[in-house]
Amino acid sequence: MSRRILGVDPGSRITGFGVIDLVGQQRHYVASGCIRTPQGAPLAERIKVIIDGLFGVIDTYQPHEAAIEQVFVNVNPAATLMLGQARGACVSALVMRNLAVSDYTALQVKQSVVGHGKAAKEQVQHMVVRMLNLSGTPQADAADALAVALAHANLSGGAIGELARQGLKVRGGRLV
Amino acid sequence: MSRRILGVDPGSRITGFGVIDLVGQQRHYVASGCIRTPQGAPLAERIKVIIDGLFGVIDTYQPHEAAIEQVFVNVNPAATLMLGQARGACVSALVMRNLAVSDYTALQVKQSVVGHGKAAKEQVQHMVVRMLNLSGTPQADAADALAVALAHANLSGGAIGELARQGLKVRGGRLV
Repeated sequence: MSRRILGVDPGSRITGFGVIDLVGQQRHYVASGCIRTPQGAPLAERIKVIIDGLFGVIDTYQPHEAAIEQVFVNVNPAATLMLGQARGACVSALVMRNLAVSDYTALQVKQSVVGHGKAAKEQVQHMVVRMLNLSGTPQADAADALAVALAHANLSGGAIGELARQGLKVRGGRLV
Repeated sequence: MSRRILGVDPGSRITGFGVIDLVGQQRHYVASGCIRTPQGAPLAERIKVIIDGLFGVIDTYQPHEAAIEQVFVNVNPAATLMLGQARGACVSALVMRNLAVSDYTALQVKQSVVGHGKAAKEQVQHMVVRMLNLSGTPQADAADALAVALAHANLSGGAIGELARQGLKVRGGRLV
């Protein structure tokens, strides 16, 4: 049996997405890319671009479940608020397509994909390329989204993954 | 000709909504209330409650346009992020129902409804009750949402309101 996982790396300017198939213990690359919002456009317009973009990805690739990075920045309150709004739009798109949504911190993603939480961005990208046997390195946000999907595959296997597919809520690989 | 305006006051725990009709220079109360998200529930669940709640309001009252308060708090980054996510979910619901969305700061709302930007919450509530000829005081978040709708009615009249209804973007009463 195969599980198709959509990973999302939300951002106010670029939202990365990555789709993988988990077949037994094998991970297969399906698709990845990024959704760019028009800079300087009103929030409503940017949110519409994010939602329409994710709807397009979901409708095209039909994932069974979704995982999203638990962003955290503290550059300044306005930037934090903006990032929160973009992430809220991403989660909105996922729940409106009835996908179970799991949250992972950057630490969890790095620990799961690279083996330690302090891994550099390049190490994460390197492991994504290696684990998915890619011929090139994806764009940075797309690679992050693939890493989130891989972390979810690693952390939500077995019984918890089964329950997640039945619609129960999973956070950080645990049922909540 | 009548314009029906939905005002929204987003919050991570309580999102207020208020619907008014603008008939010529007359403002009429239509409905108001609040959407409460389950405390301690995962974000995806809370966002689903906000979206389903706003969809219910929009589908029931069929507003022509929407106005939303431009929240800004800086209690701490986590609270700011959470509020941003809730606001992103609100805007998502509005744009998915194809409503033109106008943003107003708390300052703009107070200036427009009370006459000065430093007005206390109680003064705003008092003016909402008076302007809409209400027999009782609405719950605080519902009153804030009605105030946002009233501010939009005041600030978006004439040509700008007409263009907004045709789908052009308005921010703070100005076309952008």
